[in-house]
Amino acid sequence: MLLDELREVRRRSEALIAPLEPEDLMLQGMADASPPKWHLGHTTWFFDTFVLQPHTEGFEACDPLWSYQFNSYYEAVGARHPRPQRGLLSRPAIHEVLAWRQKVDEGLEDLLQNPPPEVTSLVELGLNHEQQHQELLLMDVLDGFHRQPLEPAYSAHAELTVQVGPEDWLPCTGGLTEIGHTGEGFHFDNEVPRHRVWLEPFELSSSLVSNTAFAEFIADGGYERAELWMSEGWALVQQNHWQAPRYWRGDDEEFTLAGRRQRDPQAPVRHLSWFEADAYARWCGARLPNEAEWEHACGLHGNALQHANRVLWQWTSSAYSPYPGFRPAAGAIGEYNGKFMSSQMVLRGSSWLTPVGHERTSYRNFFPPSSRWMAAGLRLAR
Amino acid sequence: MLLDELREVRRRSEALIAPLEPEDLMLQGMADASPPKWHLGHTTWFFDTFVLQPHTEGFEACDPLWSYQFNSYYEAVGARHPRPQRGLLSRPAIHEVLAWRQKVDEGLEDLLQNPPPEVTSLVELGLNHEQQHQELLLMDVLDGFHRQPLEPAYSAHAELTVQVGPEDWLPCTGGLTEIGHTGEGFHFDNEVPRHRVWLEPFELSSSLVSNTAFAEFIADGGYERAELWMSEGWALVQQNHWQAPRYWRGDDEEFTLAGRRQRDPQAPVRHLSWFEADAYARWCGARLPNEAEWEHACGLHGNALQHANRVLWQWTSSAYSPYPGFRPAAGAIGEYNGKFMSSQMVLRGSSWLTPVGHERTSYRNFFPPSSRWMAAGLRLAR
Amino acid sequence: MLLDELREVRRRSEALIAPLEPEDLMLQGMADASPPKWHLGHTTWFFDTFVLQPHTEGFEACDPLWSYQFNSYYEAVGARHPRPQRGLLSRPAIHEVLAWRQKVDEGLEDLLQNPPPEVTSLVELGLNHEQQHQELLLMDVLDGFHRQPLEPAYSAHAELTVQVGPEDWLPCTGGLTEIGHTGEGFHFDNEVPRHRVWLEPFELSSSLVSNTAFAEFIADGGYERAELWMSEGWALVQQNHWQAPRYWRGDDEEFTLAGRRQRDPQAPVRHLSWFEADAYARWCGARLPNEAEWEHACGLHGNALQHANRVLWQWTSSAYSPYPGFRPAAGAIGEYNGKFMSSQMVLRGSSWLTPVGHERTSYRNFFPPSSRWMAAGLRLAR
Amino acid sequence: MLLDELREVRRRSEALIAPLEPEDLMLQGMADASPPKWHLGHTTWFFDTFVLQPHTEGFEACDPLWSYQFNSYYEAVGARHPRPQRGLLSRPAIHEVLAWRQKVDEGLEDLLQNPPPEVTSLVELGLNHEQQHQELLLMDVLDGFHRQPLEPAYSAHAELTVQVGPEDWLPCTGGLTEIGHTGEGFHFDNEVPRHRVWLEPFELSSSLVSNTAFAEFIADGGYERAELWMSEGWALVQQNHWQAPRYWRGDDEEFTLAGRRQRDPQAPVRHLSWFEADAYARWCGARLPNEAEWEHACGLHGNALQHANRVLWQWTSSAYSPYPGFRPAAGAIGEYNGKFMSSQMVLRGSSWLTPVGHERTSYRNFFPPSSRWMAAGLRLAR
Repeated sequence: MLLDELREVRRRSEALIAPLEPEDLMLQGMADASPPKWHLGHTTWFFDTFVLQPHTEGFEACDPLWSYQFNSYYEAVGARHPRPQRGLLSRPAIHEVLAWRQKVDEGLEDLLQNPPPEVTSLVELGLNHEQQHQELLLMDVLDGFHRQPLEPAYSAHAELTVQVGPEDWLPCTGGLTEIGHTGEGFHFDNEVPRHRVWLEPFELSSSLVSNTAFAEFIADGGYERAELWMSEGWALVQQNHWQAPRYWRGDDEEFTLAGRRQRDPQAPVRHLSWFEADAYARWCGARLPNEAEWEHACGLHGNALQHANRVLWQWTSSAYSPYPGFRPAAGAIGEYNGKFMSSQMVLRGSSWLTPVGHERTSYRNFFPPSSRWMAAGLRLAR
Repeated sequence: MLLDELREVRRRSEALIAPLEPEDLMLQGMADASPPKWHLGHTTWFFDTFVLQPHTEGFEACDPLWSYQFNSYYEAVGARHPRPQRGLLSRPAIHEVLAWRQKVDEGLEDLLQNPPPEVTSLVELGLNHEQQHQELLLMDVLDGFHRQPLEPAYSAHAELTVQVGPEDWLPCTGGLTEIGHTGEGFHFDNEVPRHRVWLEPFELSSSLVSNTAFAEFIADGGYERAELWMSEGWALVQQNHWQAPRYWRGDDEEFTLAGRRQRDPQAPVRHLSWFEADAYARWCGARLPNEAEWEHACGLHGNALQHANRVLWQWTSSAYSPYPGFRPAAGAIGEYNGKFMSSQMVLRGSSWLTPVGHERTSYRNFFPPSSRWMAAGLRLAR
Repeated sequence: MLLDELREVRRRSEALIAPLEPEDLMLQGMADASPPKWHLGHTTWFFDTFVLQPHTEGFEACDPLWSYQFNSYYEAVGARHPRPQRGLLSRPAIHEVLAWRQKVDEGLEDLLQNPPPEVTSLVELGLNHEQQHQELLLMDVLDGFHRQPLEPAYSAHAELTVQVGPEDWLPCTGGLTEIGHTGEGFHFDNEVPRHRVWLEPFELSSSLVSNTAFAEFIADGGYERAELWMSEGWALVQQNHWQAPRYWRGDDEEFTLAGRRQRDPQAPVRHLSWFEADAYARWCGARLPNEAEWEHACGLHGNALQHANRVLWQWTSSAYSPYPGFRPAAGAIGEYNGKFMSSQMVLRGSSWLTPVGHERTSYRNFFPPSSRWMAAGLRLAR
Repeated sequence: MLLDELREVRRRSEALIAPLEPEDLMLQGMADASPPKWHLGHTTWFFDTFVLQPHTEGFEACDPLWSYQFNSYYEAVGARHPRPQRGLLSRPAIHEVLAWRQKVDEGLEDLLQNPPPEVTSLVELGLNHEQQHQELLLMDVLDGFHRQPLEPAYSAHAELTVQVGPEDWLPCTGGLTEIGHTGEGFHFDNEVPRHRVWLEPFELSSSLVSNTAFAEFIADGGYERAELWMSEGWALVQQNHWQAPRYWRGDDEEFTLAGRRQRDPQAPVRHLSWFEADAYARWCGARLPNEAEWEHACGLHGNALQHANRVLWQWTSSAYSPYPGFRPAAGAIGEYNGKFMSSQMVLRGSSWLTPVGHERTSYRNFFPPSSRWMAAGLRLAR
C-alpha cells in the first residue's frame, strides 16, 4: 500500500509539469519560489539522500554537484546552491532529471519489497514532503506566470471554483482543552507533543471571508488607514503600494492558474498577507483565531468547518513556535520544521492546491506574515 | 507628588547628557538608534502634543516643523522625519531644545496645579515614556560610541558591576494561573487584560547566564554549529560574522559605557540577540521561559528572582502578541504599543539602565529577535 | 546579394542555439546579459519594427506585448520590459519565436525584391545589429554557464585556439592624422565624422598580452597593490575579491565555451576589465593606446596588427564620446549608439566571437570599465 | 611670504566654521560629503603626515587612530575610516581638533623658518589642498542644510549675487595649439605635461547659461524627453525624479547658503549634473566645449571670459584622463589626482566659493557626471 502511494505521488508530480513549456521549467519568479524542474529534482534528492543512500547497500548516490544543487536547506548534508539563484540552473536538463527520478523510483520499489520500519517512516516522510512540493510548484508557477506580460495560463482545470457560504458564528466553549496530533497516522514533528491549553469561550465564523467582503474593506479605505494596521504591515503597504490582494487585477479581474479571468464576488478572498488578514479583521471588529482555538473548533464543529478547510489555508494569530516539549527528529531530518520557528505565523487548514489526503486538523503550515503567494485566505473569530 | 515626579524625571533626562560633547548630541549610530538631542526633543514633543495642546487653553503649540522632526511614529499626528535620518538634524541646536523643554515644563507645572483626571493619566504616561527614552538614550550612546575608533567613554559610573550568583533551579508548579497587570498603579496598555493561562510544571534558573558560561558555548563551536540555531538566526550569524555578543572585544575585553575594559567572567552575559539566547539554551539542554512562566515564577519566587531582574532584560520564548481581549487606547496614544505586535519577541524584567521604579513584574518589553543593542541577557528554564 | 547576406545572417543566429538545451534558452546570468531566446526575438523585433512596419503596406505588426518584451532600449518605440527581468520571460516559447522569425524573414524577402534605398540601409543596419547580438549571445551563454555548478560546455568548436606571437614594438609616427570611417561601406553612426587628430610619436606592441605575462603581474602582487590601480578599480577589486581574469579557475584552468579546460599559457589573456588592463599596463611601465593611436597604427602596420585584431577586442585609454560634429540618425534609430556616450571606454578590433566580415578598422565598441564578460584583451602602447 | 600664506589659509579655514552651531560640525548629509569638523581635521592631518612627520626631527606624529580617522583616501598611508561613516565621528571634539591645528601650525611655522625646497613644495601643496577643502566644506554645509526641515542659513554674506551678461559668441581659431600648465607657479600634477592638441575652429559663449534660459528648457519638457539625454542620465532622471537643478525649490525659490530665497532669473543656473548640462546643450542646438577648447579660448579671449570663470565651475565634454606623458608624483602624494582618472568629467574655471587666488586657467577640476552638489554651471560652445 505504501508502494501504491509512492507510485501515485511520484507520478502526480510529473503530471504537474505536463501543461508547461520547456522554458517554464526554469522559471523562478522570486527568491522565495523555485523553478518547477527544481521541485522535481529536490523531491528526488530527498529520497536519494535520506532513504536510498543510507538504506540500500551498493546504491550509487547522485553526483555531489546534483546534491549541491538540489539540497534545499539541510545544513547537515552540506553546502547548497543559493536559493535565489535556482533559476540559473539550466542544467541538468529535464530529461536528465526525469531519468534520475526513474532510477530513484526503481531503488525505492526494490527497497519497499521488505522495508525495515525506519525506512517505512522515511518514505512516508518523503511522500508527504513531495506532496508539499506539489503545492509549492503550483504556487510558484502562478507567481512566475503573473510576472509575465503575456499572462500565460497553466490549466483551466487548476482553478478554484467554490463560493463562500452564508456566515454563521459557531459558539465554542472554552476551558482546558488539548491540541496536537493524536493517533497512529503520519504527522510532522511540529504537530506534537499534544498538550493542554486553556481557552476562553469564543465564536468562529462558519465561512471564509469573500471577495465582496474584502472589497468593502478596500472601498472603506482599508489600505489607506494606518490605524488598521500593524506598523510593520503599514510599512509594507507603503513600500510595495499594496492596494488589493496579490492577484487582483483591475476592478473585477484576477490572475489565476487559468490565466486572467473575472473575479467571482462570492469566492473566498485569497493570496493576502497576514497583515492584510489582520487589518481586515480589525476593520470589521473581529479578530483572527489563534491556532488552539482553530483546532479546538474543528473538534466541536467538524462538519461545519470541514469544507472550507479544504479550500484555503487560514491565517491564525499564532506565531509559529514549538509546542511545549517539542524535540526535532535526530539528524538532518530534524531540520525539516524545527529551525523555522521564528518570525513566521501559523496557517491552518489546507487549500484546493493541497493534494487530497495530505490535509490534517493538526497540520501546522507557516509563512512569514508578509507572504502572499500561498493559497491563503481568512476565517474570523470573535 | 506627580509634580515632584515630573520634576525629577525631566531633570534626570537633562542630567544624562552632561557627560557628552556637543557633537555627541547629533550621533546616530544606526537607523534603530536616535541621537541624544532627539530623545530630549521627542519626550518634550510628547507632552507638548498629547498634554499641553489639547488641555491648556491658549497654549502655543510647537512649530509644525519641530513636530515633524520630533514625532517618532504616530501616524495620527501626521507625517514624520524619516527615522534613519535623525542624525542629520543638526538644528534645532541643543540650546533651543533645552529652552523648549523649559517652556513645556512650565506649562506642565501650571497644568498640574489642578489637573483633571485624564491629564493626570496622560502626564503619567508621558513620564513613563520619558523613562523609556532615558534607557534608550544610554543604549544609543553606547551604540554610537562603539562605532568610533577612539572608543569614547560615557561615564565610569554608568557601568554595570554585578556578578551572577550560584545557579539554582527553582521549581514552579503548573496549572491554571493568571498573568497581566493587576491593581491600581500605572501600567502600559499591553499588560492587560489580566487573563488565565494553563502552565505545565517547570523549573526556572535563579540566576542569569554568565560570561564564563557563554564563553564555553563559544569554545564549543556555538557560533559554528548550524544545528543549534533557528534558520533565520544562522543566516544572521553568517551574514554579520557574529562570533560573540555585540560588545565583546578580543579575548577578554568588552566595550561599555565606561569605555573599553576587562570583561568580568562572573558578570552576566549581555547584548545578545534572541537567536543567540535561543541557541545557547538549546546547546545546554535547556530553553527560554515563555512570558507566562516568567511572570508566574515571579509570583512564586519573588525574592530569589528580584535582584537579577533589575540587572538585565531577559529574552522569553514568547512572540509579542496581544493579550486576549486587548484593546489599544483611543486616539494617537493607541499607537503606543499595539501596532508593534508582530515579528518581535517579549523581554521581561528590566536592566541597570532602567530608571528605578520604572520596572514591573507585568512589564512587557519587546524587540525584534535580531536586536542586540539593548541591555538584554538570558535566564534559562527547563 | 543583400538577400543572400540576410539569409546567411538570419540562419546563423538560429544555428547558434543548436547546441543548447531548451532550458538554456531562458538563462540570464546577470542583468547585463540576456537569454538566448531573447536575442532571437529582439533581432527579429528590430526588423519587424524598423523595417517591415514602416515599409510594408499591410504588414501585421507583432503583438504590442511582444514589442514590449523584445524592445531593448528604444525610448521612442515605447515602454520596455525591465532588462534585469528578461530571464523571467518563459513565454513566448521558442517555437513561437522561431515561427515569428520565419514570418519576418518572409516579409523581408518580399520587400527586398525591389527595395527603396532607405530600406536597403535599414536592412543593412538590422543585419549588423543581428551580428552584434550573435556575439552577445555567445558572451551571455558563457556567463550563464560559468555560474552553474555543472559547468556545461557550449561546444568544443567554439573555443579560441590561438597563441600570442613574439612581441615587437612597432614605431608609429605622430603628427596630424585623420580617424573615422571613410569610403562607401556600411558603418555605424559613431564612426563618423572622420576628423583630424594630433598625435605624438608612439610605439604599439605587435602582440596581445599573454596569459603568462598576466600571471606574472598576479604573482608580483598585481591585485594587492593599490598603487597600480585607479581608485574606482581598486574598490572593485576589494568588493568583488578579484584575483584574476573573470574565467580563470584554479592554478591553470579556465572556463570557456568548451567547458572547463587547461589554460594555454601562450594564449592571449582575456575577459578582464578596463581597470585590470590599465593596472597591468602601469605595472609593466607601458600604457593603453588611445583610440586614435590604435586606428592610426592600423594604417601604418596593417599586416602586423591584423591577425590579433580578430582575436580579442582591445581596451583603449579613450572614454567613449562623440566625434567632433557627430549627429545621431533621426528617429528611434538615433538611439543606437549616441545615447551611450558617457561612463564607457572604447574597445577596438574584434574577437573570435565576432561574425566574420563584421569587423572594421574604424569600429568603436564600448563597455563600462568594470565589464569583464566581453571577449576583451589588451595590447600595449608606449 | 609662504608663511603669510600659511597663516592666512589656515586662519580662513577656522573662520569658516564661525557661523555654525556645534552640532553642525558633525553633519554629513551624504556619503560624498564630509562634516565640517572632518575637513578641519583632514587638512591638518595632511600637514602632519606629509610635511611634519617626514621633515621635522622629533615631531610627535598624531595618534594613529586620528590618522585612521582623518586620512581621506591615501592607500599608501594605511587603512582609513570608511568615508560614508565620517558623520559618526563625534570624537575628537572640535576643541581637540582646534588644539591639534594649533600644534601643527606651530610645527609648520618652525619648519618654515628655513625650509628645504621639498618642504616648500609640500607646504604649497598642503595649502592648495586646504583651499580645496574650504570650498568642499561650504558645498557640504549647503548639502547638509538643504536636507533639514528647518532650512538653516549659513550666512547671508556667503551667497552669490551676480547676473549673467548678454550672450556673445566668441570666435575661436582652430589649428595646432598647446594646453597644460606653463610657467613657474604652483600647479597640480594633473595639469601637466603641457602638450599639443589639434582643434577645429569653434565658438564659445561669452556668458554662462542663466536661470531663465534653463527654465525654458524645463518648460519645453526638458526633463521629460528621453531623446535629449544620455541613457545613463535619463535613468537618473527617472530614478531620482529630477525635475530641476538640485537646489531649486518651488516655482521661483532656491536653497542657498543664505537659506531659502527668491531665485534671481538673471543669475547663472547652478548645481546641475553633467547630464543636465549636456541635455540642455543638446536642446538648444549647441554643445559643451571640451577642455582643450575651453583653455584655448581663455588664451584668445581672456578678458571676455575671466569674470564668469570666477563665478561657477563649468562642465566640459572631456572625460577626466591623464595628459599624454602624465606621471603621478612619487609616494603617497601621487594618489592626489592620478588615481581618479576614470568615470569622471572635467570642469574648468572656478566658483564664488573658491578661495581667491586658487583659480588657474589650466586648473582641472573633476566630478562624476551625476554629481550636483558642486558650484557648477555651464557655458556653451558650438
